[in-house]
Amino acid sequence: MSGQSTPVAPSAPPPPPAGRPPKVTNRGRTTVPVDSSNSETSDFPEVEYFGLPGPRGFPPLTGFLDISGVDMVKNPDEKNKVEHHTALFQSDKLIVRRGQEFQVKITFNRAYKPAEDKFAVEFVIGSSPQYSKGTYIPVFPTKERQSSWEGRIVNTADNTITMGITPKVDCVVGKYHMYVAVLTPFGVRRTVRDDSRDLYILFNPWVKDDSVFLDDEQEREECVMNEVGIIYHGAYDDIAERDWNYGQFNYGVLDACLYIMDRSEMPITNRGDPIKVTRKASAMLNSRDDEGVLVGNWSGDYTYGVSPTSWTGSTEILLTYASSKMPVCYAQCWVYAAVFNTFLRCLGIPSRVITNYFSAHDNDGNLKMDIILDDNGRIDRNRTRDSIWNYHCWNECFMSRPDLPPGFGGWQIVDATPQETSDGMYRCGPASVNAIKHGHICFPFDAAFVFAEVNSDVVFYSRSKDGTMEPVKVNRTHVGRLVLTKTPGAMTRRDITDQYKFPEGTTEERTVLEKAEEYGCHRDKSNPEVADVDLTLPTLEISVGDDFEMNLEFVNRSDERRTVDMYISGTVVYYTGVTTSEFLFRDPTVEIGPNKTVNELITVESKRYLKYLVEQANLHFIATGKIRETGQIVTAMKVVALRNPKLMVEVSATGKVNEEMVAKVQFTNPFSFSLENVYVRMEGPGLMAPKFKYYGVILGGLSLTWSEFFVPQRPGETRVIATLDCAALRQVSGQATVTITA
Amino acid sequence: MSGQSTPVAPSAPPPPPAGRPPKVTNRGRTTVPVDSSNSETSDFPEVEYFGLPGPRGFPPLTGFLDISGVDMVKNPDEKNKVEHHTALFQSDKLIVRRGQEFQVKITFNRAYKPAEDKFAVEFVIGSSPQYSKGTYIPVFPTKERQSSWEGRIVNTADNTITMGITPKVDCVVGKYHMYVAVLTPFGVRRTVRDDSRDLYILFNPWVKDDSVFLDDEQEREECVMNEVGIIYHGAYDDIAERDWNYGQFNYGVLDACLYIMDRSEMPITNRGDPIKVTRKASAMLNSRDDEGVLVGNWSGDYTYGVSPTSWTGSTEILLTYASSKMPVCYAQCWVYAAVFNTFLRCLGIPSRVITNYFSAHDNDGNLKMDIILDDNGRIDRNRTRDSIWNYHCWNECFMSRPDLPPGFGGWQIVDATPQETSDGMYRCGPASVNAIKHGHICFPFDAAFVFAEVNSDVVFYSRSKDGTMEPVKVNRTHVGRLVLTKTPGAMTRRDITDQYKFPEGTTEERTVLEKAEEYGCHRDKSNPEVADVDLTLPTLEISVGDDFEMNLEFVNRSDERRTVDMYISGTVVYYTGVTTSEFLFRDPTVEIGPNKTVNELITVESKRYLKYLVEQANLHFIATGKIRETGQIVTAMKVVALRNPKLMVEVSATGKVNEEMVAKVQFTNPFSFSLENVYVRMEGPGLMAPKFKYYGVILGGLSLTWSEFFVPQRPGETRVIATLDCAALRQVSGQATVTITA
Repeated sequence: MSGQSTPVAPSAPPPPPAGRPPKVTNRGRTTVPVDSSNSETSDFPEVEYFGLPGPRGFPPLTGFLDISGVDMVKNPDEKNKVEHHTALFQSDKLIVRRGQEFQVKITFNRAYKPAEDKFAVEFVIGSSPQYSKGTYIPVFPTKERQSSWEGRIVNTADNTITMGITPKVDCVVGKYHMYVAVLTPFGVRRTVRDDSRDLYILFNPWVKDDSVFLDDEQEREECVMNEVGIIYHGAYDDIAERDWNYGQFNYGVLDACLYIMDRSEMPITNRGDPIKVTRKASAMLNSRDDEGVLVGNWSGDYTYGVSPTSWTGSTEILLTYASSKMPVCYAQCWVYAAVFNTFLRCLGIPSRVITNYFSAHDNDGNLKMDIILDDNGRIDRNRTRDSIWNYHCWNECFMSRPDLPPGFGGWQIVDATPQETSDGMYRCGPASVNAIKHGHICFPFDAAFVFAEVNSDVVFYSRSKDGTMEPVKVNRTHVGRLVLTKTPGAMTRRDITDQYKFPEGTTEERTVLEKAEEYGCHRDKSNPEVADVDLTLPTLEISVGDDFEMNLEFVNRSDERRTVDMYISGTVVYYTGVTTSEFLFRDPTVEIGPNKTVNELITVESKRYLKYLVEQANLHFIATGKIRETGQIVTAMKVVALRNPKLMVEVSATGKVNEEMVAKVQFTNPFSFSLENVYVRMEGPGLMAPKFKYYGVILGGLSLTWSEFFVPQRPGETRVIATLDCAALRQVSGQATVTITA
Repeated sequence: MSGQSTPVAPSAPPPPPAGRPPKVTNRGRTTVPVDSSNSETSDFPEVEYFGLPGPRGFPPLTGFLDISGVDMVKNPDEKNKVEHHTALFQSDKLIVRRGQEFQVKITFNRAYKPAEDKFAVEFVIGSSPQYSKGTYIPVFPTKERQSSWEGRIVNTADNTITMGITPKVDCVVGKYHMYVAVLTPFGVRRTVRDDSRDLYILFNPWVKDDSVFLDDEQEREECVMNEVGIIYHGAYDDIAERDWNYGQFNYGVLDACLYIMDRSEMPITNRGDPIKVTRKASAMLNSRDDEGVLVGNWSGDYTYGVSPTSWTGSTEILLTYASSKMPVCYAQCWVYAAVFNTFLRCLGIPSRVITNYFSAHDNDGNLKMDIILDDNGRIDRNRTRDSIWNYHCWNECFMSRPDLPPGFGGWQIVDATPQETSDGMYRCGPASVNAIKHGHICFPFDAAFVFAEVNSDVVFYSRSKDGTMEPVKVNRTHVGRLVLTKTPGAMTRRDITDQYKFPEGTTEERTVLEKAEEYGCHRDKSNPEVADVDLTLPTLEISVGDDFEMNLEFVNRSDERRTVDMYISGTVVYYTGVTTSEFLFRDPTVEIGPNKTVNELITVESKRYLKYLVEQANLHFIATGKIRETGQIVTAMKVVALRNPKLMVEVSATGKVNEEMVAKVQFTNPFSFSLENVYVRMEGPGLMAPKFKYYGVILGGLSLTWSEFFVPQRPGETRVIATLDCAALRQVSGQATVTITA
């Protein structure tokens, strides 16, 4: 008997390919791999005999009822697509919504005899269809025999019957194959697989029992059917907007959305549940963790992709992802939100894009954003680590929440922008808007995180020499200043701040914050005495390249003279609030008589800030100081979102389907310097696919004109949307409205 | 002005390295990268001047108080480690628990003068320490000046002071650096960085305000301090057990646990919150998604690693991961649970390993496990996809849940075994045990999933020819049959089933299930009529290699004669319930007179099953059939966990610290055939590090003996634990208890 002793801890064997041990290691783990692909399918046998062959083998299954044809009734103008609100989809397949009857016509080799003929229409989805899992569904024409999907014969004419089929209201959403099976005493005979009989089943906001039911026709028209959107950005007191083509009905977009779920390996059986679908999608829309759709890039360098500010719509992004099967470059928050919006509307989940002004971020349920001053009252940029986004975009989608107690259904926040912290993964939501408003942040998913985005306090600390810090001012109204979305049925904006929070200073607001704290949110309790000198910065509307003046108004509310040592700093910031270069610094000493007002005027020359501009050209002014007499701290902040030159888009106000039209885009370089490597993009829902033009250089003061011919595909009011983008000038857009008649 | 038009959709640029865009793309995204490493550190300057240099430059900071030495009072027998329950750690660093005072001795160059001398003891953790984030903490000796950590001078002798320091009760858990800083009028002077002054701060179950406070000394002794554990497996009616060495105090284990959090890039600031720590760890313990600690393998082929059944403890696994920085092969559920248990106890979070018998799995909040019979009543293995684990192991850890409403603190379920579905990531929990018991599955994390593991129904369907299925029998008591853990302070088992569910059939139980359904769990509502023939299979205690008989007892409760066409199938199953080969099949017809009992005897010869045995040698018998007279379905199931031969471990009952002893492991091959490639492993907490021996072959009937010398390191009762493992025979273990005196 041999045996040799050895010191232990064998060197670790080679690890499996990142995060994915070879499937074989699961052999004893599960009976079958989980079915997580809508594209993989298993064909059904044409003939299935019952029992064992008799002495003479199997009898032929002829002489029974036979199918000679199936009509899916799938033309856009036919009953199915009209009644199911799917006529706009550019697809040659039947697309219907669950919980609502659709009709197919089946033609037999002879008249159908209800008494003796037995047949079933079968629907299958995924690679291992199972009746008990709802991925294999036979539908019967007779009252006596019914499965989970209801079937009935609507009409019989000669050899053709019209069959009405109602998919279960909570059935799996995706692409199904359809078969017709005739049941004989000896076995089952089936139609052969035929792609033209495939059909898509979507969520149904029009049906009461669907978990995405939305009982408001105008909201449905906007949040499911509308392809044209507006996304708000800029500053809360100087709002900017841009159009977006969601294009949820464009050719290939629906397949791309199903591919996203396949790519995420989401189990087929979960795909009827909007909670699971939206949560999974919020992770898949960004490329972190899971090779998702969009690569985030906030660096200012977009050489190897499309600049986030340059996109005009979602379709280009989704189709590229589906065809290349690689993440698309690049995105920032509004691109994530816009593409997510397309995904949701395409599948039939009502959704809208939200903009939250002054959004607290990455602070993981902590309700404090810290700004640190040295003990002279000057901001300490090295120690100030938190940033407040000038604005942040996310989505709301509408659904019931059976997983929560009553009262938290309705609009739910989902956010696909990769966050540093959301339960350890780059995804967020769905979180009930109503739960956020009432501070019930104990419910899934990520409610505490979203609550902080709209409710954090800005705390100014004074840091003393020994490293400790005292809070000297708390601003409880800065964050979550304004929440906007597009008005249903109009091209105007809608203030929905009151859906997120009670008015500042009300009892309800205080109660909500207390409740949130019970659930572990940390707030700063200190209540430092308010300085008796008020400082306000004006709201300015400035265009890129303007020189301007900024007037600081000091009001002394005390009966004594006050002397304030001020530090006024102007920096260029990303929309994320991250500062780059300081282009202005002043440290005046301001003397204010008792109950007097003093104005301090500061001149800002464009040449000082122009060379530092990044991204969307935001100037951030922060004025802090200390009152000599009292040691109190005085602070004020202001973000100036510089206005970009407009892109002129011209198109004749009306047009006809299939009659050629022309769109004209014009732009003049307002600067003395030239713009280089300029991309101009243009597209229009129902008008033209995304197009772009590249201009190597646009000399200072010169103009460009781009005329593009296009042919409208369908009637209705729509828009031509255009953007211009280059390193020196981002977020330039324009649009024109056109009404197309049939 | 040049410009050329181009069709759009540029080919997608190369994607970023999987899921991780280059950090630069975040430049404008956050001010600083999130601090997520406890190993990276930023050294503090030795001298920090205040303000700007004067005309003659900076004054020298000499002539002030100076530090000549620091004593961390870190010997195992000294006050700190004794009072903080950390004396067992094999470490030369100071290890303390938060919310409780520890002491350090500081020696100055002269006597300390409280009136004029100013100094602070500074603690820093991570690479970007910030006061406001709790990662930089100065501690002051004076009442007037206090930071978040309390400091006081306990004693002064000559030039040496003893300072008492109490870390905040919710402070970050991990490894801190300590500095002593003297404050002069001109600046700060610091001790140089010195690793010997590093200290670890852990969770503190002994202190009332710590969120992991556990008010039961015996539970604390077991769930924090005990290194020896018992893990239960086998079958609910024939329980087997094995010992495990958690080894949470072994040299290097604490560092390995901190490395796991670093590897997961968990933000330092989250590491004081046991909810976030346990959730993150449940993801990191398995290698899916995130290159975590253990690679799961259920294939039966463990050639490239250590077989899951072969491990004797956690330390070998953790140390290998920390040194190789690669996932360790291989694990199954009890290995995940045992290593997770080490992680939790090491950091000071009370925890225990749980075994749930007949655990429903991978069915994502759906409360049904489907077994499908053809219309003769014979099981249809192709269509039966769900599997019920004979047992499944997870962990419970003890903590308050401030993120939930009152009443859901206490024991929380966490599970590191990769699940097919847990919110889309391979992790699970923490889920409140109390929430599971009362059906409040709306609260995070993964409560619905765990609820299904202990509450699912087994539904037998009869599948008719046309593909539809009728439920014919529902077994509501099979799943979650028994929940076990080790008894605190004893080597016996403890039934805690009543902590997970109310007794079967009580009103409370029904109410709970209804509540769970309100939150979206799906149950089978059908209540098929119960057959009037009862069938029971006996409980058997069989050893591997035995021939045995199985007696099926049929009881006819009706007043008429009954004829049952039975199908009796015996298969070999993994502990996951996945079946491999059918080694036995019978289809007797059983005639039972009115109100009579009939016994059907089935002989099982070992040669039939031996060659098919996998893993832990479980035989699964399922008997199904149809009553001719009534068409009712009769079913019964039984798992027989074959008993393995024992490994004999011998060691003298008592020993002395530092006096050599010998442990003897003996095994006899009970089979006629030889066992090949056999590994025998042995270790003992406080006795010996893991060791193994390899035997190329053990001929049938032959024995092996392995004697190993070892030197006990500390007093107390402990065990020598040994396993034997080879492809033909797994889960063979043995142990011996020994009491070591000082």
